[in-house]
Amino acid sequence: MVFSKDNMTGIILALLSSVFIGTSFIIKKKGLRRAAVVSGVRAGVGGYSYLLEPLWWIGMITMIVGEIANFVAYAFAPAVLVTPLGALSIIVSAVLAQIILKEKLHPLGVLGCVLCIIGSVVIVVHAPQEHPISSVKEIWYMATQKAFLLYMGSVIVLVFILVFYFAPQCGHSNVLVFTGICSLMGSLSVMSVKALGTSLKLTVEGKNQLIYPETWAFMFIVAVCVVTQMNYLNKALDTFNTAVVSPIYYVMFTTLTIVASVIMFKDWDGQNIGSITSEICGFIVVLSGTILLHVTKDVERSSSFRGNYTPTSPSLSTRLCNSNGESHKHEEEDESYSEEADSRRQDLQV
Amino acid sequence: MVFSKDNMTGIILALLSSVFIGTSFIIKKKGLRRAAVVSGVRAGVGGYSYLLEPLWWIGMITMIVGEIANFVAYAFAPAVLVTPLGALSIIVSAVLAQIILKEKLHPLGVLGCVLCIIGSVVIVVHAPQEHPISSVKEIWYMATQKAFLLYMGSVIVLVFILVFYFAPQCGHSNVLVFTGICSLMGSLSVMSVKALGTSLKLTVEGKNQLIYPETWAFMFIVAVCVVTQMNYLNKALDTFNTAVVSPIYYVMFTTLTIVASVIMFKDWDGQNIGSITSEICGFIVVLSGTILLHVTKDVERSSSFRGNYTPTSPSLSTRLCNSNGESHKHEEEDESYSEEADSRRQDLQV
Repeated sequence: MVFSKDNMTGIILALLSSVFIGTSFIIKKKGLRRAAVVSGVRAGVGGYSYLLEPLWWIGMITMIVGEIANFVAYAFAPAVLVTPLGALSIIVSAVLAQIILKEKLHPLGVLGCVLCIIGSVVIVVHAPQEHPISSVKEIWYMATQKAFLLYMGSVIVLVFILVFYFAPQCGHSNVLVFTGICSLMGSLSVMSVKALGTSLKLTVEGKNQLIYPETWAFMFIVAVCVVTQMNYLNKALDTFNTAVVSPIYYVMFTTLTIVASVIMFKDWDGQNIGSITSEICGFIVVLSGTILLHVTKDVERSSSFRGNYTPTSPSLSTRLCNSNGESHKHEEEDESYSEEADSRRQDLQV
Repeated sequence: MVFSKDNMTGIILALLSSVFIGTSFIIKKKGLRRAAVVSGVRAGVGGYSYLLEPLWWIGMITMIVGEIANFVAYAFAPAVLVTPLGALSIIVSAVLAQIILKEKLHPLGVLGCVLCIIGSVVIVVHAPQEHPISSVKEIWYMATQKAFLLYMGSVIVLVFILVFYFAPQCGHSNVLVFTGICSLMGSLSVMSVKALGTSLKLTVEGKNQLIYPETWAFMFIVAVCVVTQMNYLNKALDTFNTAVVSPIYYVMFTTLTIVASVIMFKDWDGQNIGSITSEICGFIVVLSGTILLHVTKDVERSSSFRGNYTPTSPSLSTRLCNSNGESHKHEEEDESYSEEADSRRQDLQV
């Protein structure tokens, strides 16, 4: 557990990013509530008065700062480390929601928070060292090695099958189609973002990488991947409940990103089997915490907003196949809900 | 993660012990059900027909085998490793209950199982090596070192305060009093059981330890500690709901045992900070899984047996101060319940 300076910077940036993004949810929600009080029209039913509310804009800026910190973190530490730490933003927002918005956190939600923190600690303790990179050409070489080309090829084929065969057939009835597409693209987004971030970091340090076409190629790939990912994430969130999409997306996106990073950057080379096992375990613990937080959040919501909670069906599995109309209706029932979906859209983007 | 042969033996024995104990619950419960069908009188309302049911006896024997395996495991591997693995018996019984007794496992209960397993993996991966011990005199020396005498002294003082001051006052209204006493005594039980087990192991290996008075002293201490612990565990289980007592007891007992073992056997000496952190995290993950399993078990039970489940109160915290009469009534409502309390009494004993 001896951290290089770069790894440390990456961890701190990833943590800061989670704090900023988590806080931004709360500030934006407070802004929305205030706007609703002033104008009497809620965002969920078509009001745009929140655009005049300074608090909402402060929330927006906080989120952008968080996303930038996240982007820079990728330039310093392995994706295997940075991506799972993103789950901490959920804790920050859950804790602040309880303190500032006086929303009640389910006792099992507290357990979910504890698990996210514990899992993150395990991941951080066993995080691999970032291999020093001195030029964008090196990253290009890593991205064009056989194993990674195979991964990239499989991802692209899978995405095509999902987009052209499954999406028209059951994209609106099976939550795994849209979230699958954006998770698959997301793993490529992170790899290209990391490549671009590292190039820009090297440029800032005095080793200009903008003279190489590879840097511009990565920039183009970032644009394509992020736009596709965002597009399908929006589709997923428009079609299904945030509480269903978020944990599934988090699981698939983080898993695929770790796989991609392990193949491309060989994060696990030189690590012993114990460390790798611990990292995977830490990751599963964070996932469990995330699922627990989301499931219990939904319980609280169901009971307070809809009233008819049955103890045998708060499970994720039973809600995997929501029909379009039904869940979309849920989304519009309450302003904070659709707004949260809106902000989560950006939170989960990279 | 290089295991010594002894550590490996200890881990396998601890796992086997969990399988046996977990299975024994199910066999005994099946035996009880059969006995109830044959005689028409349930154990909960005073029937003893289960004593004529061979299945019940097979369950009893399975449990005793499991307890012996557990006892022997302590002679081979550190308590820091063996004690937390005890949680796996809960998983075995939960899984078998679903398969054999067709009891429905809450989806969050499945998550609890996953957490117990993942936490156990982390603990096993980072388990310290057992220091080789060649004589009971060595263990006696460890038990009489200043730090451990201080621990033992504090435990005894605390137990006295709890027994003579708190037990008469609020033993029947606060679940922490009785469970506290048996957890404190439990940590001393495990230490003395480990000492005795190691002496017997050495004797079997040809180095006769029965000639030393220390072995007999440990035998006496085991008896005193286990009897006190059992006595107060029975009181706790008679007064409060098993679903309340079990997780609290597991948390306190395991924590105190780890503390005692770390002080007495210096399990953490020579381990780096990363391994120790991971072990603690793994332990917290197992605890969370246990809590999740117990809480959701209670939910299922509440909904199927009592009908009036409110989503805001399945928490442990809200049930910490059950009154005597109320919870005792629950205990007697259904035979499987009181029988399970009965078997858990033995499961949790050491």
